Amino acid sequence: MEAEPTRILVGVNESSLKGYPHPSISSRTAFEWTLAKIIRSNTADFMLLFLHVQIPDEDGFDDMDSIYASPEDFQSMKQRDKIRGLHLLEYFVGRCHELGIRCEAWINKGDPKEVICSEVKRVHPDILVVGSRGLGPFQRVFVGTVSEFCVKHADCPVITIRRKADEAPQDPVDD
Amino acid sequence: MEAEPTRILVGVNESSLKGYPHPSISSRTAFEWTLAKIIRSNTADFMLLFLHVQIPDEDGFDDMDSIYASPEDFQSMKQRDKIRGLHLLEYFVGRCHELGIRCEAWINKGDPKEVICSEVKRVHPDILVVGSRGLGPFQRVFVGTVSEFCVKHADCPVITIRRKADEAPQDPVDD
Repeated sequence: MEAEPTRILVGVNESSLKGYPHPSISSRTAFEWTLAKIIRSNTADFMLLFLHVQIPDEDGFDDMDSIYASPEDFQSMKQRDKIRGLHLLEYFVGRCHELGIRCEAWINKGDPKEVICSEVKRVHPDILVVGSRGLGPFQRVFVGTVSEFCVKHADCPVITIRRKADEAPQDPVDD
Repeated sequence: MEAEPTRILVGVNESSLKGYPHPSISSRTAFEWTLAKIIRSNTADFMLLFLHVQIPDEDGFDDMDSIYASPEDFQSMKQRDKIRGLHLLEYFVGRCHELGIRCEAWINKGDPKEVICSEVKRVHPDILVVGSRGLGPFQRVFVGTVSEFCVKHADCPVITIRRKADEAPQDPVDD
């Protein structure tokens, strides 16, 4: 056995249908696939790194009911976002803890595809695992996905895990 | 441990510089990466499937010195190609044998990207590993690579392993 574990960075996000703290189907599928097919029972040989990228709120839709009266209100909004993200990461870290797999998890803000690639440059994982909504060829042309960008630009080998067809919701945006 | 091993299909080809039976730098890099980062010492948990796709000879350049006087001459030429391919596979099968990793290897003829994807449909591997010459963005636009096609079209998760920069020959075609 090599002394250094194989470090696998997994990009995770929240369910667009159920919201925080629920992980998206794609994230969960990518994580479970990594456990079953790569790590298997060799828990000491691998280390998982979970990166959750929060997209800066542009439309403010989530905060339509809030009243902002002071700079502190904005601060508490940012704080709330962060706590939501932490609850998402808790799911993955909890599972690793149960299974005895070393892990680290953190949150960044920004454009997910850009942040994931810059974090790959910073932490040098051996593999990047990203889930994919498995958009059809027609949707893919217009939408462009985080996974496709990472495959092209990340400075490490990338595995894209597509969701199983029976797990895909009717509308591929609901993930 | 799961009863079934994780089955990894590795696409392999010959060195374009040294020719048969030498594996290309990309193939060797992809194979060695799989051993070091995925399989590690857990040899019983994985099975490797090696697929070598031979491109049907269109220009006949390799056979410029040959004289074809009978149908048997063409037959022996085909036979010779197959034997060269077997010597290439011997390299990978030999390494697996040394390491105690179960494996299978076979040759197909056709367009590598199409054949690899159709073999994925047929043998249902858990992962497809393909080496990549790591062409620059400019070359990539015009060349289009087997690995990019497989990432888009293969019915299983795909890992593209780019060559290390220090292993890349001056001319990326020399691999």
